[in-house]
Amino acid sequence: MEQKFDIVEVGPRDGFQNLKEYMPAEQKLAVIDALAASGVRHMQVTSFVSPKAIPQMRDAAQVAGACLERYPGLDLFALVPNFRGAQSAVEVGLHKVTNVISLSVSHNKANINRTHDESFAELQKIKDQFPELEVCLDVATAFGCPFEGKYRGVEPLLAFLKRGWDCGVRTFNLCDTVGLADPGQVRRFLLACRSEYPAARFEVHIHDTRGMGLVNTLAAVEAGADGVQSTLGGLGGCPFAPGASGNTATEDLVLMFNEMGYDTGIDFDKILAAAKAEFAMIEGSFSGHNLHVGKRPCC
Amino acid sequence: MEQKFDIVEVGPRDGFQNLKEYMPAEQKLAVIDALAASGVRHMQVTSFVSPKAIPQMRDAAQVAGACLERYPGLDLFALVPNFRGAQSAVEVGLHKVTNVISLSVSHNKANINRTHDESFAELQKIKDQFPELEVCLDVATAFGCPFEGKYRGVEPLLAFLKRGWDCGVRTFNLCDTVGLADPGQVRRFLLACRSEYPAARFEVHIHDTRGMGLVNTLAAVEAGADGVQSTLGGLGGCPFAPGASGNTATEDLVLMFNEMGYDTGIDFDKILAAAKAEFAMIEGSFSGHNLHVGKRPCC
Repeated sequence: MEQKFDIVEVGPRDGFQNLKEYMPAEQKLAVIDALAASGVRHMQVTSFVSPKAIPQMRDAAQVAGACLERYPGLDLFALVPNFRGAQSAVEVGLHKVTNVISLSVSHNKANINRTHDESFAELQKIKDQFPELEVCLDVATAFGCPFEGKYRGVEPLLAFLKRGWDCGVRTFNLCDTVGLADPGQVRRFLLACRSEYPAARFEVHIHDTRGMGLVNTLAAVEAGADGVQSTLGGLGGCPFAPGASGNTATEDLVLMFNEMGYDTGIDFDKILAAAKAEFAMIEGSFSGHNLHVGKRPCC
Repeated sequence: MEQKFDIVEVGPRDGFQNLKEYMPAEQKLAVIDALAASGVRHMQVTSFVSPKAIPQMRDAAQVAGACLERYPGLDLFALVPNFRGAQSAVEVGLHKVTNVISLSVSHNKANINRTHDESFAELQKIKDQFPELEVCLDVATAFGCPFEGKYRGVEPLLAFLKRGWDCGVRTFNLCDTVGLADPGQVRRFLLACRSEYPAARFEVHIHDTRGMGLVNTLAAVEAGADGVQSTLGGLGGCPFAPGASGNTATEDLVLMFNEMGYDTGIDFDKILAAAKAEFAMIEGSFSGHNLHVGKRPCC
């Protein structure tokens, strides 16, 4: 009866990069182990960015390499802000990456210091250079932007997707970067996107800034999203999106969907224990759900 | 396009009764004034209970009397745990009360120390004695009970409603006392209740214990609920429901529904300011969303 969809864990990237203190690779892998043991099958394990920009992710190759070795059967991928990041991801053996471009021109400038033309040219370069690599597109600020406000109409998003589609992208991740979306908007946007690109895969990446993380995620699933992203413990944020706070918590999503009878494949007790263990590990390094630390790309 | 429904503020009862320190009647009325100024039209203003059991509500007659004088056009009502409370409510001039009975026999015993038979006999007595009084029924633990677990089937609830209906009740308020409900269950239960009692009015009273306050409330509205209860600032709790925490926050509900295009009649900026003013007022007297203080009936 229910729609099929995947819960996609992005905490090892979007969560960890918001920690104030460096978390050793062993600790990161311990959290990833707990996620895998809970039944998580789709995971963004790190981000290949400049270690100067994000010192927290300086162990990207080590973490991704260990994950590939430990979990060859899982769907593992990394965020790459540019061609160089994609190169590193391929070198370590990843078959899938996600590139970020903001729908909002001003946010794209603030986040990765590029125009749309520059961003799509980089995306094209990645696709051309690595034809075997699955390149997904994170559409940051898909529902609204801290600088430009909420998007009421879906047309700018559809036009943006066209550019990604023309580059060869087949998986789009609609990110509510600041948490401006509402369930009605999520449904409208998802239905329009699906209808315009029936052959594409759509995921959502919902921040919980205004408490609508769960309700927006459910709205997305019921409007046909193929995947919903979340972070263990609700970690997350965006340094270039004033007011952005944590992501939707994976354990909250699992509880809701399991209780509704969906087959998430994830054990709630195990993932709740994983979230608690994570919190114990990072205590003091993560101060709530509203962090704006460092300079790193978000989605 | 959207369903019509009312946002029903129950903070002056369910919120305030969870404060550790006595809040003077003038402060209570200041919060109520701010709620009314924000556009709130339906309000549970107090509870007529023994001042020994709940010292916080010892000013019930004063608060209710002042509300009736100030806001004759609003839908004002009070919670009454028994016949004596109903008597006091009528004396002060209220035309509407809500009586509480738990679907769970064990919770009813813990909450108001009565069997179902005793509770329904009391309800019948109130109806018989005050034929002009509108008596609503708060069905506590309608979705699940801290002692008996979650209710998967709706049959016990429907049988319970029958007893209320036979007493003359036409408004039922389904309370997720501990926050065990999920959106699928809320839809199923609401649809079944509406189908069985098409002439009745249904409201829900959702606690946010597991973060599903908004998603469950939206599910209820979309399944045809006539009213949704919430508390300014998300105050609330239940001393006889282990694990119960605050209600869904009115300002969160208003934001979500306004953003979705519903006509709530409530101004978000004003109600957010009201919530902040309330928090400033009670600082130190309310420690988060997980209070189990005193001995007072909940729903």
